[in-house]
Amino acid sequence: MSEYHKPDTNNLQELRDIANKLRVHSIRSTSASNSGHPTSCASMAEIMSVLFFHTMRYKLSSPKDASSDRFILSKGHAAPILYAAWAEAGLFPTEELMNLRKIDNDLEGHPTPRLNFVDVATGSLGQGLSVACGMAYVGKFYDKASYRTYCLIGDGESAEGSIWEALSFAGIKKLDNLVAIFDINRLGQSEPTAFQHDMDAYRSRLEGFGWNTLVVDGHDIEAICKAFHEASQTKGKPTCLLAKTYKGKGFPAIEDAENWHGKPLGAKAEEVISAIEGQIKNPGPNNLVPQKPLHEDAPKVDISNIKLASPPKYNKGDKVATRQAYGTALSKLAENNQRVIALDGDTKNSTFSNAMLKTDPARYIECFIAEQNLVGVGIGAACRDRTVAFVSTFAAFFTRAFDQLRMGAISQTNINCVGSHAGISIGEDGPSQMALEDLAMFRSIPSSTVFYPSDAVSTERACELAANTPGLCFIRTSRPGTAVVYDNDHQFEIGKGNVIKSSGSDKVLVIGAAITLREAMTAADQLASEGINLRVMDLFTIKPIDKDGIIKNARECGGRIIVVEDHYAEGGIGEAVLSAVAMERDIIMKHLAVPRIPRSGKCDELLEMFGISASAVVKAAKEISSL
Amino acid sequence: MSEYHKPDTNNLQELRDIANKLRVHSIRSTSASNSGHPTSCASMAEIMSVLFFHTMRYKLSSPKDASSDRFILSKGHAAPILYAAWAEAGLFPTEELMNLRKIDNDLEGHPTPRLNFVDVATGSLGQGLSVACGMAYVGKFYDKASYRTYCLIGDGESAEGSIWEALSFAGIKKLDNLVAIFDINRLGQSEPTAFQHDMDAYRSRLEGFGWNTLVVDGHDIEAICKAFHEASQTKGKPTCLLAKTYKGKGFPAIEDAENWHGKPLGAKAEEVISAIEGQIKNPGPNNLVPQKPLHEDAPKVDISNIKLASPPKYNKGDKVATRQAYGTALSKLAENNQRVIALDGDTKNSTFSNAMLKTDPARYIECFIAEQNLVGVGIGAACRDRTVAFVSTFAAFFTRAFDQLRMGAISQTNINCVGSHAGISIGEDGPSQMALEDLAMFRSIPSSTVFYPSDAVSTERACELAANTPGLCFIRTSRPGTAVVYDNDHQFEIGKGNVIKSSGSDKVLVIGAAITLREAMTAADQLASEGINLRVMDLFTIKPIDKDGIIKNARECGGRIIVVEDHYAEGGIGEAVLSAVAMERDIIMKHLAVPRIPRSGKCDELLEMFGISASAVVKAAKEISSL
Repeated sequence: MSEYHKPDTNNLQELRDIANKLRVHSIRSTSASNSGHPTSCASMAEIMSVLFFHTMRYKLSSPKDASSDRFILSKGHAAPILYAAWAEAGLFPTEELMNLRKIDNDLEGHPTPRLNFVDVATGSLGQGLSVACGMAYVGKFYDKASYRTYCLIGDGESAEGSIWEALSFAGIKKLDNLVAIFDINRLGQSEPTAFQHDMDAYRSRLEGFGWNTLVVDGHDIEAICKAFHEASQTKGKPTCLLAKTYKGKGFPAIEDAENWHGKPLGAKAEEVISAIEGQIKNPGPNNLVPQKPLHEDAPKVDISNIKLASPPKYNKGDKVATRQAYGTALSKLAENNQRVIALDGDTKNSTFSNAMLKTDPARYIECFIAEQNLVGVGIGAACRDRTVAFVSTFAAFFTRAFDQLRMGAISQTNINCVGSHAGISIGEDGPSQMALEDLAMFRSIPSSTVFYPSDAVSTERACELAANTPGLCFIRTSRPGTAVVYDNDHQFEIGKGNVIKSSGSDKVLVIGAAITLREAMTAADQLASEGINLRVMDLFTIKPIDKDGIIKNARECGGRIIVVEDHYAEGGIGEAVLSAVAMERDIIMKHLAVPRIPRSGKCDELLEMFGISASAVVKAAKEISSL
Repeated sequence: MSEYHKPDTNNLQELRDIANKLRVHSIRSTSASNSGHPTSCASMAEIMSVLFFHTMRYKLSSPKDASSDRFILSKGHAAPILYAAWAEAGLFPTEELMNLRKIDNDLEGHPTPRLNFVDVATGSLGQGLSVACGMAYVGKFYDKASYRTYCLIGDGESAEGSIWEALSFAGIKKLDNLVAIFDINRLGQSEPTAFQHDMDAYRSRLEGFGWNTLVVDGHDIEAICKAFHEASQTKGKPTCLLAKTYKGKGFPAIEDAENWHGKPLGAKAEEVISAIEGQIKNPGPNNLVPQKPLHEDAPKVDISNIKLASPPKYNKGDKVATRQAYGTALSKLAENNQRVIALDGDTKNSTFSNAMLKTDPARYIECFIAEQNLVGVGIGAACRDRTVAFVSTFAAFFTRAFDQLRMGAISQTNINCVGSHAGISIGEDGPSQMALEDLAMFRSIPSSTVFYPSDAVSTERACELAANTPGLCFIRTSRPGTAVVYDNDHQFEIGKGNVIKSSGSDKVLVIGAAITLREAMTAADQLASEGINLRVMDLFTIKPIDKDGIIKNARECGGRIIVVEDHYAEGGIGEAVLSAVAMERDIIMKHLAVPRIPRSGKCDELLEMFGISASAVVKAAKEISSL
């Protein structure tokens, strides 16, 4: 146990001065941009000063250094003070702060990793702590390194359930290298928070969630220093500082007043700045500098060029569920690279992520039934390229984490989401468990890659490609078995579909995936006997989509396309195909998709009832072939 | 205070017998369907018996009676025992239970309101308590009636943050007419829960959240009766029963064992049934019947034919933000009908839902920054047609509640979601605050109606139509002002667009909305001077879409369409239009949408940078007009 050394008087004053310098920067920069949240910055100025100039250990020369402490600003709207802290620390000139929120500068309204000192984007509230949990989990269990993770949370955003999912996770996993700081400044955007300054309300909640909980005066530099020290000495549980603060602290007539959220100070700015500058004893260069990491003990990690440890090994025609092939692929990738990890939300025996338990149980992270935190922990774990994270649950339940996924894209995350139980083909469990809008969701996420493999061979290759593909990847898997259609050595490419069946006289191009590819093939066989030839195509990736392949094949089929998909009509394969052919005159498309809320029933009954069966394809093909 | 009367020995035994009868039904029905969750039913059998035959007061003749107690089964996978309870109560013959999960029967795998005794669909875990909060809030503050609301929650699902959002809400609002029951059976789907039978872990959490918390043996009929009585006598806070139970209780060799989640008992069924039936003293008809409501004190409510209290009153050309027009409309609707309510998540001064505070502060429900619960409370408040709920936040943050919205559609909810701050036009706050996938999300929800009004007049009418439209409605509003383009007496229809500008020689049909309609008009004016005429169309609703209008106008413009939208390319207006023209040969569409993650900047700079400005329309029109 290291003993607590109170900073000497000079250093305490220096930290106070830095806090006030950060306040001034926050006012000046938001005045320059004429927008932003100076009062939300002011409440946390002392906390930032202590973190950046006393407590945290990090390399200024390399803000994303593996062995450095991590800091996540969950209340992203306080970005100006984050930027100010890094500038005061010396990463870039403080003059740069005046470019806040300008279109040609990366000091945006809320932090994004376009800045080299930002790991993840924040600004949609309540998401930072899950990410911090992922980082801390990796630090403690995989890197086994001494870096610590700090996450600053606003009191308003602490109403988000995702915060409580993360608090619970950190308590359960005993992440004693994690420190959360609640900036309890009493005021939300539009009114006071529910608990205002009732510190006991927060304390009893946090203690209930298994945290070492310290209530501090968030404007008392010494108290903050001491609390962070106590946190560093606390083993077996994470520590939370509940900092009692005032919004607009130090701004005369504005401090602790309502109706000042998200407003620059305008005409009052100079007066407020004078008042604050009057408190600063050392207006010159800081006498304190950031402290470097004590130990460079995070291991070197290589997550490039990850391969399946052995190629797919199936027989054509074998019926294998693609969710099962995912388990096999996960295992093979984990064998090949020690940094491949799996996370799931208590569905591992359905998604087959439990395959990891056999390969290396330490690389499976059970996140229980809390999908927002599941995704957030995955994003955190993948930060600074420490791991390749495969995150799985039922595809339907990824909708729970849409906001986290959306922010993940802004965060430039590389996580791989694997969603099982696609569509009505799951059968009896009914609509609540059926993913029918997941493709719409994942397609809408910028920079995403959306895999929808139809058989076991393509699923294994989808996983391999996903492991090496930048950006957010989604792999949609299915519950029922589907026949293996590819040779084990088939070469798959992102954005390249495969024609599964064709002839020289095809009348219609039919595009299906997984269960509907099966139906399309059945329809093609049946119609062939009636002299109508269908060409059947499997896209492999829905995004990016094989635009050239679709146009070429559609043209060869008289400009007629049928898309049959186990998804609602909006945003799925059909609309992706329509976008691909949007500028082509003379191509038409008939769309077979689930037209309304489905119900419980057997898979084949449901395919029939909701119009995505072989017989529906036959009917559609007959209709369209004359158009 | 009413005194507790212990049920007599006969009644206690009768309640025990009913619990075991419910167990037997759960086994038999899941055996018949060869799927389902009998062990998850068994842990809650005593709780259901007490609720349905001792504690709850409800009308069997009218399961959705306004004055009856409400029951929400949040752990929807225990549907078989819910169905069994209603059957044993006498709502329908118990033989019917054997049709569980069949395609031609409404006793689905998870409950949906296709059944007359189900208010909301459950099955995506962790959502029931928010809905129950909405019902209890209406009961306490609007109906001021004596009915009570009960919500049964699984221990596994209690890891969901949405549960903690709801627990927090109920504590803050002091919903003492609400009772939550945690069925703590120790086992999740794939492994034991994090806290197993650590009842103190649950107790300290619940107490921290402001609940009256009672730990009970969940298989002790008398203890359960007593706890529910205590709940009914507790004022000023909601009550939670933490019921220690065993999964598969009473199933020899299965009780409390792992690997029995979601599995019918198969060959073991008859042996288990024999063991349970051996416990039943009265195998004949029940001697207990449901108790009717003591008071028929829920008021009659009429939410039909809601009108704006006064028509829109704007001048053409005035610049008014559609979000502001929403506030005006909300106020007018609330004036017209006492059951119009507004809910928001601490953004009311941005969405303009704070207009309700002036009209009637009691009809505004502040839900703080917890969007999942916000939507859930709205769904609950709208149940049994008690209110017309307008739920608002930034459109981007509705992504937080996608799963709740998805389930809301299965629940046949009529809530109206109003999402402000659409797209990059919000400017400096940056991508985290920009809704760019909201249309994709809301379009993918079955039975949704998606309004995207371009000016203040159409916004007011959209709100009026939404108030009267069944199903989930979404109204997308914008931050910056846009010019009023409609006359105050313009008649709007769902699914009917309006041509804003046309000539006899239009070369291209341009479809925009709000800020991009403005850009399209600017482009049209500019190109007109160069001799290229554009026709400009405003869709009003994106779903349903004006298919006939689009096709007719596109044909009149040489089959050329440009869609320009402040949304990502996937799932928005462009793909909706493509779907509308999918079967038309000879129509092409050029799509201008936000092509990648945007950034902070000024609105007009961003429109230009991301290719959805007037100049982008001009360029696209010149390109397409020759094709």
